[in-house]
Amino acid sequence: MSTKKKIYKPRAISGFPEWLPEIRAVEQQWMDHIRRVFESYGYTNIETPVVEELDVLLAKGETDKEIYTLTRLQADPRDKTDARLGLHFDQTVPFARYTAQHFNSLDFPFKRYQMQKVWRGERPQAGRMREFYQCDIDVVNPDNIPIYFDAEMPAVMWEILSTLPGMENEKIQIRISNRKILIGLLEHLSITDTAPITRVVDKIDKIGHDGVFKNLTQDCKLTEEQAQTILDLVTTDKDPADIIDRNDTMAQGIAALCAVMDQLKHLPDGAVKADLSIIRGFDYYTGTVYETVFVDKPEYGSICSGGRYDDLAGSYINRHLPGVGMSIGLSRLFSRLLADKKLPIGRKSPTDILVTLPRNTNYRAQANEIARTLRGRGFNVETYHADQKIQKQLGYAEKKGIKYVWFTPSEEGQSHEIKNMVTREQTQADPETWTKE
Amino acid sequence: MSTKKKIYKPRAISGFPEWLPEIRAVEQQWMDHIRRVFESYGYTNIETPVVEELDVLLAKGETDKEIYTLTRLQADPRDKTDARLGLHFDQTVPFARYTAQHFNSLDFPFKRYQMQKVWRGERPQAGRMREFYQCDIDVVNPDNIPIYFDAEMPAVMWEILSTLPGMENEKIQIRISNRKILIGLLEHLSITDTAPITRVVDKIDKIGHDGVFKNLTQDCKLTEEQAQTILDLVTTDKDPADIIDRNDTMAQGIAALCAVMDQLKHLPDGAVKADLSIIRGFDYYTGTVYETVFVDKPEYGSICSGGRYDDLAGSYINRHLPGVGMSIGLSRLFSRLLADKKLPIGRKSPTDILVTLPRNTNYRAQANEIARTLRGRGFNVETYHADQKIQKQLGYAEKKGIKYVWFTPSEEGQSHEIKNMVTREQTQADPETWTKE
Repeated sequence: MSTKKKIYKPRAISGFPEWLPEIRAVEQQWMDHIRRVFESYGYTNIETPVVEELDVLLAKGETDKEIYTLTRLQADPRDKTDARLGLHFDQTVPFARYTAQHFNSLDFPFKRYQMQKVWRGERPQAGRMREFYQCDIDVVNPDNIPIYFDAEMPAVMWEILSTLPGMENEKIQIRISNRKILIGLLEHLSITDTAPITRVVDKIDKIGHDGVFKNLTQDCKLTEEQAQTILDLVTTDKDPADIIDRNDTMAQGIAALCAVMDQLKHLPDGAVKADLSIIRGFDYYTGTVYETVFVDKPEYGSICSGGRYDDLAGSYINRHLPGVGMSIGLSRLFSRLLADKKLPIGRKSPTDILVTLPRNTNYRAQANEIARTLRGRGFNVETYHADQKIQKQLGYAEKKGIKYVWFTPSEEGQSHEIKNMVTREQTQADPETWTKE
Repeated sequence: MSTKKKIYKPRAISGFPEWLPEIRAVEQQWMDHIRRVFESYGYTNIETPVVEELDVLLAKGETDKEIYTLTRLQADPRDKTDARLGLHFDQTVPFARYTAQHFNSLDFPFKRYQMQKVWRGERPQAGRMREFYQCDIDVVNPDNIPIYFDAEMPAVMWEILSTLPGMENEKIQIRISNRKILIGLLEHLSITDTAPITRVVDKIDKIGHDGVFKNLTQDCKLTEEQAQTILDLVTTDKDPADIIDRNDTMAQGIAALCAVMDQLKHLPDGAVKADLSIIRGFDYYTGTVYETVFVDKPEYGSICSGGRYDDLAGSYINRHLPGVGMSIGLSRLFSRLLADKKLPIGRKSPTDILVTLPRNTNYRAQANEIARTLRGRGFNVETYHADQKIQKQLGYAEKKGIKYVWFTPSEEGQSHEIKNMVTREQTQADPETWTKE
């Protein structure tokens, strides 16, 4: 038979990143680090299915996020039993649905973290991801939630972002405001349709002071004086405590922002900053808002954002659930730093020690025994299984970045030796007692 | 305005499990444990996107697995740029595709583990999962792979399964055979169409000795003598070394099985067993095959299976890549044990210590300072943020299963105290030096 084998040559799918083992190892370090810090502040993990019913995803009305829906490949078109399911496009909707669905089984304030992939059916284009990890923390509580949680969020995120592998030398800053300050000013200026104004102010980083002024006067039809008053507020470098409030709403916002900043004094200089130009595009946020930037690299955009909201799950349950949360766009940050060669490259293998197979394979059992002993002592250990020359075995360790090679004795009375592949030093050792230098 | 708010009451989606925090905490322990053991044997992690191109999923021909495909909710039907994408139904196809795609960047033997969700578009029914975690290890190498890896697989899996939280008292057994033994016998009996025979033998646990005999003679048209010869082989309790080989194929199979069993002598009695009735339904497997059962609960089926294959990625690359692997059906095992009340229930919160907010809220900063000190020392610590009576704060700790409550001093010179919520003991303590008893 000479049937030619058909090969389907695989290729990367645009927008769905995947990493080589040595990069994935760093991504795992990131996830472990983030999880450890979240848990150190008492946040508990939940994980929701990748899908939600479309009715849930669209409960707040049409979304501008592109949703992927599922279809069974061999579905019988007459079969309507399959629910209409869509991949979640963020973790807020699943969290809201989860909290509503399990409301009576949860304890409040409910502090949860979630680290999952989300999907957006974007048209593929450079840098746009269609599958990516987000890492969210939120706290929600029926009816009210102390303002001090608003200060906890940036404290947690600062601790994470300033110590992520590869981020230690980056200068980042969490910028904080309170939406009520600007909203209060707009009330004072008798501007009732606030959403278009906040959307313009939100773009100040991109379009600049003049762009905002032009937009406010031309598109939003504000007077030049109104526009200037708004710009004066959002670009002020005054301490929030020194801002003059024009009404109760502004006063509440200023007091809340001052309370938050006051609780963050323990952070290094410049870690957090009150910045009234931070407003976030979503009307979902009702108080504190956050963005996080690389001070020297504005092109990274905000790597960690969030805010306080008045009602998490109103679409799914008749309970008032205010909360506050922040989210790290993990995959975007990770892949950007990777492309900019800022990430440490990880190990191709988690192995600490490679135990050789001696040329006298009667000693194979002893090699396995050594590996078990070292493994029992907490090391990651693999045994070389192919009957090949020691030089080849050392080459394997080298190639995979395995730091230590343990030479299995291959005759009665021969002593154990271990070689440090970096220093090239080789010393006698005992599997029961050996430790890394 | 009296518009009545529309509530969409959420419900569980059949086949897509999700857990309360205290159950998810146990699932996390499981995943951590499995990962730790995989890495301790030198397996490296990869993670692939949730989707593959349909051409990749179907490269080996139609599959009997129900595949979910993706569609963009707002897709323009004229837009053909979206690849035809499907959710992966196992981790073998993605692993094969990954290995082929990144072949030149990988180091061999390539030892990888993968712990991801997979999806099957099954019709919803009791116990059938449509989304579940699998935990796979495989090793592949161009052209050949030493038989000793076949022994490493069950050693790894035994270590995991015998020590998973909730599994410590379960009697499990990994049953091992080598397909070549039965295939060799069938050759010897001049039976060329082997696939139907192996499929029947694979069902022996379900249909019993007589069922297999009836199937072999009636459906497979074997003589009674042939059927009996086959049954005698697959139900033998002889040591594999004592089985008489009828040809080279049988001899190879017996030698390989003996070599594997020989390397597993360090395991406790009954942990592994040579069992010639293990054959696996897939012709994909060409040598060693494994199944893992609860000795006293055959209804659990096989919780961890796998085997040796001759060619991992032949559909995607013109390289011969034999390998061996095993897979734990994590979600199925986990949810079954949960339903049978065999799982320890986890904590509702990862918090070790709750630091109280004293009624004199001037001491709020001090509460945060205590929390930071304890956190810096490795404890998971949360500060109580609501200005409420101490009794209420203690109630919160109780409710969430937080073991220690730290009383923040609320006047000059007052000493720190910590209460163990289990023993009810309350003692003086210093945040710089306190340790768990």
